[in-house]
Amino acid sequence: MVVLVVNCGSSSLKFQLFDMRSEEVLARGLVERIGLSGGKFKYYRGTEEPIEFTDSQVYASHANALEAVLKALTQRDYGVISDISTINAVGHRVAHGGELFTAATLITEEVLRGIKDCISLAPLHNPANVTGIEECMRLMPGTPQVAVFDTAFHQTMPEEAYLYAIPYAYYQKHKIRRYGFHGSSHRYVAEQAAELLNKPLDRLKLISCHLGNGSSICAIKEGRSIDTSMGFTPLEGLPMGSRSGTIDPAIIEFLVKKENMSLDGVMEVLNKKSGVYGISGVSSDFRDLEQAAAGGNHLCDVAIQVFCRSVKKYIGSYYALLEGLDALIFTAGIGENSALVREKICTGLEHMGIKLDRRRNLTPDAITVSAEDSKVKIMVISTNEELLIARDAQKIILQRIIPS
Amino acid sequence: MVVLVVNCGSSSLKFQLFDMRSEEVLARGLVERIGLSGGKFKYYRGTEEPIEFTDSQVYASHANALEAVLKALTQRDYGVISDISTINAVGHRVAHGGELFTAATLITEEVLRGIKDCISLAPLHNPANVTGIEECMRLMPGTPQVAVFDTAFHQTMPEEAYLYAIPYAYYQKHKIRRYGFHGSSHRYVAEQAAELLNKPLDRLKLISCHLGNGSSICAIKEGRSIDTSMGFTPLEGLPMGSRSGTIDPAIIEFLVKKENMSLDGVMEVLNKKSGVYGISGVSSDFRDLEQAAAGGNHLCDVAIQVFCRSVKKYIGSYYALLEGLDALIFTAGIGENSALVREKICTGLEHMGIKLDRRRNLTPDAITVSAEDSKVKIMVISTNEELLIARDAQKIILQRIIPS
Repeated sequence: MVVLVVNCGSSSLKFQLFDMRSEEVLARGLVERIGLSGGKFKYYRGTEEPIEFTDSQVYASHANALEAVLKALTQRDYGVISDISTINAVGHRVAHGGELFTAATLITEEVLRGIKDCISLAPLHNPANVTGIEECMRLMPGTPQVAVFDTAFHQTMPEEAYLYAIPYAYYQKHKIRRYGFHGSSHRYVAEQAAELLNKPLDRLKLISCHLGNGSSICAIKEGRSIDTSMGFTPLEGLPMGSRSGTIDPAIIEFLVKKENMSLDGVMEVLNKKSGVYGISGVSSDFRDLEQAAAGGNHLCDVAIQVFCRSVKKYIGSYYALLEGLDALIFTAGIGENSALVREKICTGLEHMGIKLDRRRNLTPDAITVSAEDSKVKIMVISTNEELLIARDAQKIILQRIIPS
Repeated sequence: MVVLVVNCGSSSLKFQLFDMRSEEVLARGLVERIGLSGGKFKYYRGTEEPIEFTDSQVYASHANALEAVLKALTQRDYGVISDISTINAVGHRVAHGGELFTAATLITEEVLRGIKDCISLAPLHNPANVTGIEECMRLMPGTPQVAVFDTAFHQTMPEEAYLYAIPYAYYQKHKIRRYGFHGSSHRYVAEQAAELLNKPLDRLKLISCHLGNGSSICAIKEGRSIDTSMGFTPLEGLPMGSRSGTIDPAIIEFLVKKENMSLDGVMEVLNKKSGVYGISGVSSDFRDLEQAAAGGNHLCDVAIQVFCRSVKKYIGSYYALLEGLDALIFTAGIGENSALVREKICTGLEHMGIKLDRRRNLTPDAITVSAEDSKVKIMVISTNEELLIARDAQKIILQRIIPS
């Protein structure tokens, strides 16, 4: 089975084409600046050097971009399939499934309406996802389309985890509640961890730390998300590259009044000028911060400390909720690559059975980085949301053919 | 030594007069609705029935109220001292000491200016505190006045605990940071716990849960606050009677736009219509909620669950930061009186060495409510901020007389 995974942003389109027998990526690529000047399309076949197309005319819309992608995939010289009918299914990453979608779903007209109904919850992301789906339906009529939601994994959270302590009417009327994001990533690494630990997922207590430019943590009990740090939006929770994470809500009012800013202006600051960038004033990239901190920049060091302390506090929270812990998982850009961050987070958690092996932690590509006698396994697992989306799409197609 | 403790609110004045040899309360009382219609003054001598004065003329201002208090204290029939010169010191509860005050302080003109400088951080509370101090200085010239700050205890938090991940300039310019409140209460119960455990405070790791109409939790390591749940203002942290506690900051913007509310309107909702009252729609009082929940009201039950889960998560966070735990302390209205809340919080924390004895927990006035084999002592300690303020005032006066 061949599955195309599509991830549409407001001005971008990412894709990967999987051969599901081997789970090999046949080709992948990224179209950037769709609808803007300077659009470009980077296309990778297997491990070859990428080909870059820069005919911006072609990338005037998501429709054009998708046509260019399908053309590249089937092109004689650098294509990987002979015809688009070879594609058995398309898996779409969809940002927000609200309370409607608790798992990957075959897209019908009704499902598409449901995704559109969630636009008020993700006004920046769901419209682009809808466009991607509609264009794929137009260009590949008859090919099943599957939606995989960033929020779906967290729909297992209990009521007391997802309700905010605000008037209940706001939940009823606007569905204001904790949703959580990075669901596919948390689920993927949890499944990988279970496999690596050779234990059934439904017997494990896991904490997954997805630490990247956007960061979230998830408490996973018996394969189900029971709590997560992102909330109604991806702004809540950990400090991130440029996002504040959780703050005292009264700070917003204070800034509007004292800095004479608009509310939009304050929200812009909290989303784009805050996080480790806001504290350090230097960068949202941890590689830059670590380098500057090593060179004696105090605020870069503090930014890292604030981030690591916040992760540590969430680990403690979820350790309390989970009533124990089998494995602590680090994933995504920072989680996979920063040995320093992992060390700062784990140091001092030995009383919780979390004991890092400093040498293993510094070994590139090491998966288990805990000490032999650590009660809790500490694991570094590369996330792969696209593969999970492809697997979900395959599973749904197979269920359709062979109903269980 | 006789110490008068004064706590001025915007329209109220509470006081207690202590004989510090025995730490006995000679008299105490409350003047309400100062400057409003229907002002009244309730005065208690020892354990006698209170006397109530309702001559609203007298309570037109804090000055008048204080004059009435001093008159009552020295009145022939129901007074407790012959003359106000008997009062050796006055201890004032001051809401916000910013970064200026890290401990109780003898009030000088300079200190008074400092308290005024903190008004922007506590615009509702510090002005009333200033009025109380100025009126006492006028009516009792020569009597030393001591300020005890609600924030001072938390000034030992490290930088990475008190900085938010927002632009650092806002900290420099406006001192936006985590301050924490209920400092006198957390410090008082920590000192009591050390005494009850017969161990020096500087050898203990404690988590203090001040759960009342306003609630906060504090991680106390070696007698010093290292983190606390309230932040820049008392809105952050746990859900409270009518306050939301921490929420996704983006909810504020969403409500302003979708509900067509002003920012002030949203902040009013978060401060006065949220918390367990907001979820339940029934009450901000846990006694009402517990009764309604027992009668089958689902949202009252959920409100209690949301609250207890949040407390549990903070306990986990602080357990992680403290690298262990000697005692978990419950105090204030809910913490001291709700066996149900204590049970819901502690259940499931056995893996952290926290094991409640259900029978002890139900015993009125029990102090230690953990099981014999609980690694962590669970203690219920009545808070007494007024006594701590009196002790602080006494200590400062004695140091003045006998410099160390």
